[in-house]
Amino acid sequence: MKRIAIKIAYDGTCYSGFQLQKDVPTIEGEINKALESLLGEEIHITGASRTDAGVHARGNVAVFDSASSIPPEKYPFALLKFLPCDIRVLKGIEVSPDFNPRKVPCVKTYEYTFSCGMIEDPLTRRFASFLTYIPDPGAMYQAATFLVGEHDFTSFANPSSQAFNSQRGATRKIYSLDIEKAPGGAGELVKIRIRGDGFLYNMVRIIAGTLMNVGRGLWTPEMVLDILKARDRRKAGPTCEARGLTLLGIKYG
Amino acid sequence: MKRIAIKIAYDGTCYSGFQLQKDVPTIEGEINKALESLLGEEIHITGASRTDAGVHARGNVAVFDSASSIPPEKYPFALLKFLPCDIRVLKGIEVSPDFNPRKVPCVKTYEYTFSCGMIEDPLTRRFASFLTYIPDPGAMYQAATFLVGEHDFTSFANPSSQAFNSQRGATRKIYSLDIEKAPGGAGELVKIRIRGDGFLYNMVRIIAGTLMNVGRGLWTPEMVLDILKARDRRKAGPTCEARGLTLLGIKYG
Repeated sequence: MKRIAIKIAYDGTCYSGFQLQKDVPTIEGEINKALESLLGEEIHITGASRTDAGVHARGNVAVFDSASSIPPEKYPFALLKFLPCDIRVLKGIEVSPDFNPRKVPCVKTYEYTFSCGMIEDPLTRRFASFLTYIPDPGAMYQAATFLVGEHDFTSFANPSSQAFNSQRGATRKIYSLDIEKAPGGAGELVKIRIRGDGFLYNMVRIIAGTLMNVGRGLWTPEMVLDILKARDRRKAGPTCEARGLTLLGIKYG
Repeated sequence: MKRIAIKIAYDGTCYSGFQLQKDVPTIEGEINKALESLLGEEIHITGASRTDAGVHARGNVAVFDSASSIPPEKYPFALLKFLPCDIRVLKGIEVSPDFNPRKVPCVKTYEYTFSCGMIEDPLTRRFASFLTYIPDPGAMYQAATFLVGEHDFTSFANPSSQAFNSQRGATRKIYSLDIEKAPGGAGELVKIRIRGDGFLYNMVRIIAGTLMNVGRGLWTPEMVLDILKARDRRKAGPTCEARGLTLLGIKYG
């Protein structure tokens, strides 16, 4: 048996998220099926990030064990005819048999895209959330600076987050949080890019919803510090819709 | 009766092109239906560019005549609930009753996007053509310079092009032709942006196919000059697939 790690990209629009569920299409389910068709073995992949329904990925990571002699670097090509066209395996490498992508320290990067204007641009519809206002990126950036570093992010997590029970509780480290605004589509595109050592359930989406409340002038940037200190989900902004969110990549070691 | 001009954006993936056809979904057909539902009148729009099946637009233009008193600038909002989510009207203005967007001189800008790498990026799949090689943008740009200006583009047109019979025959003026390469998706993104006073049937797609033959080293840039002079479609490169092509905009006056 070898343990193989694969890098995965997908357009999440048509899937009920990464994690396997009965009777609905999921990224995990499709990749298990493709690997089983290719290898003739029963396969259960373990994904690094269980992205929500509608979230995309350019570089999620998963591992599986197989007795096959297929060279790991051939998986992207061998799987082409078994995967739906909105899921692709980009890379394959052999890793040590105890490598668990959910437990090894790593840096994850997410990007949130917002299409801002009077009428939604149909060309960014699958990859951007639509806003009828243009948030102020300067105010958002000021607010974002309070979140960079190691903090207890209870206020920015879905209270049902299983991660609260883990060893590190709600403490996570954000390495960077950048805001970008550029003309695009039928109006302006605003992007939030966040890099951290892990994220609680819905954490990126709640951070985005909070920064948007600042960006549209409902809250001052400084209020984000109070929200962080409160350790209370009810103080933070709404959970932004999944559609504009992409897991750009995960770095190990 | 007023003549209204509308600016239209669409994701062309699911449509059999702009032009109305029986029994298949078209951009023109969907917009006629939406306007008829809104206005209760029979509507036949006239489009400036009859884009091919799978081609997208950020700024196509069409006109229609209506007795309605709806202020033209309200059309984008009034049509929201009648249009499919991959077609949007971005603007509406009243124009003179004899304004025909197909006959008035204009400048059209198209952008072609190619996603280049070993495995196709599922996130650019709807808006980029996939190439398993990375073309040389420098060679493509050199070749492109021979096409800028006013020329007879017979070599770069589908021989069935009706435009040959028009007053100006196969003569068109290209104002600019730019090549851009940037990292993106699962590999590199190469873009061709072309601005001209009009394009013959398949002309942008054949120019792209020709530049790709140069970019991958099959042809020298100078050969494009010979192809242009030959006035023979068989000398030029293949017609690139429609998927990566977007009509960015049309400028009048």
